[in-house]
Amino acid sequence: MAEITAQLVKELRERTGAGMMECKSALKEANGDLPEAEIVLRKRGIQSAGKKSSRVTKQGLIGTYIHHGGQLGVMLEVNCESDFVARTDDFKELVHDLAMHIAAADPQFVRKEDVTPAALEREKDIQRARVIAEGKPEKVADKIVEGRMAKFYEEVCLYQQPFVKENTMSVEDLIKTKIAKLGENISVARFIRYKVGDE
Amino acid sequence: MAEITAQLVKELRERTGAGMMECKSALKEANGDLPEAEIVLRKRGIQSAGKKSSRVTKQGLIGTYIHHGGQLGVMLEVNCESDFVARTDDFKELVHDLAMHIAAADPQFVRKEDVTPAALEREKDIQRARVIAEGKPEKVADKIVEGRMAKFYEEVCLYQQPFVKENTMSVEDLIKTKIAKLGENISVARFIRYKVGDE
Repeated sequence: MAEITAQLVKELRERTGAGMMECKSALKEANGDLPEAEIVLRKRGIQSAGKKSSRVTKQGLIGTYIHHGGQLGVMLEVNCESDFVARTDDFKELVHDLAMHIAAADPQFVRKEDVTPAALEREKDIQRARVIAEGKPEKVADKIVEGRMAKFYEEVCLYQQPFVKENTMSVEDLIKTKIAKLGENISVARFIRYKVGDE
Repeated sequence: MAEITAQLVKELRERTGAGMMECKSALKEANGDLPEAEIVLRKRGIQSAGKKSSRVTKQGLIGTYIHHGGQLGVMLEVNCESDFVARTDDFKELVHDLAMHIAAADPQFVRKEDVTPAALEREKDIQRARVIAEGKPEKVADKIVEGRMAKFYEEVCLYQQPFVKENTMSVEDLIKTKIAKLGENISVARFIRYKVGDE
């Protein structure tokens, strides 16, 4: 039996707006599982107070960019540490530049680490086969594949791509410049790119 | 052995920019599977000509809406049948209204049909338990659950939601008015909503 802490009860109350005793009993029934306890409450007819109150733990901005007369659109979230930095022109400029960059360069992932294992294996497999087809000796094949993977990351990862407005630096370099200037950690949380008819 | 039709060869050539004989042989090796044949070509060192040439089969617009000083963003794609309609002010107004609506009403799905079976079952389960907890007779329980599911769709499906600017009509009604006015089929293909810190 999980312990029903005051913290858990408090969170469930915040989420649902239900009374303390109701929350305690629901948590007991759900064995301390918060989402489950929310369902228990709803089953008892205690409506959740609309959506979960979303407590914003990060600061930042949502940016968008529309291109080609509405045929292409980008939306992204860039995070920083304070509301103050999020409101600076420097930060706004970064968000705008990144949105434009994504529209032009069409990255598939934010960072190297975000490339899915399946996509990675598929690409390695292709590059290995290419190297062998080119008649390269087996013992240097792995090294060549590694080199080509770096190229692959530059093609598909936002952070590794050369920045479209200034292609001597990577997008990561651009972000680092802003971090240095604004004195706060800044990172791209997510992005999405829509093209008409592309779904 | 799958037949390698001229159509398949043509599509592979369009996708990759490779020569006809190369495409034929790759398709043979891939047993007529187009994506697989593309990989075969790449393994042979024949680079795909950048991204797949995306042939837009639908017309329409990508719309965005930013709210609360960049803390909330919406992007959506609305399709119609012709480029001409996509450029009309009426269509643009619809796209804008829908983006604003999504920002305000936070739908989870486009249509009833898009509600995932898991979400549907979970909700039915909750409503069934509520009805029983309320002491309603078993034989009317199903009917009551059905009624409450209609309410659920109105809460989570864009098309079923009351339009925020004019809540006597549903979003579907709004779209139908535009269909009647513009004389073309119009539909929402997809949407996404970002809130800072919400990931």
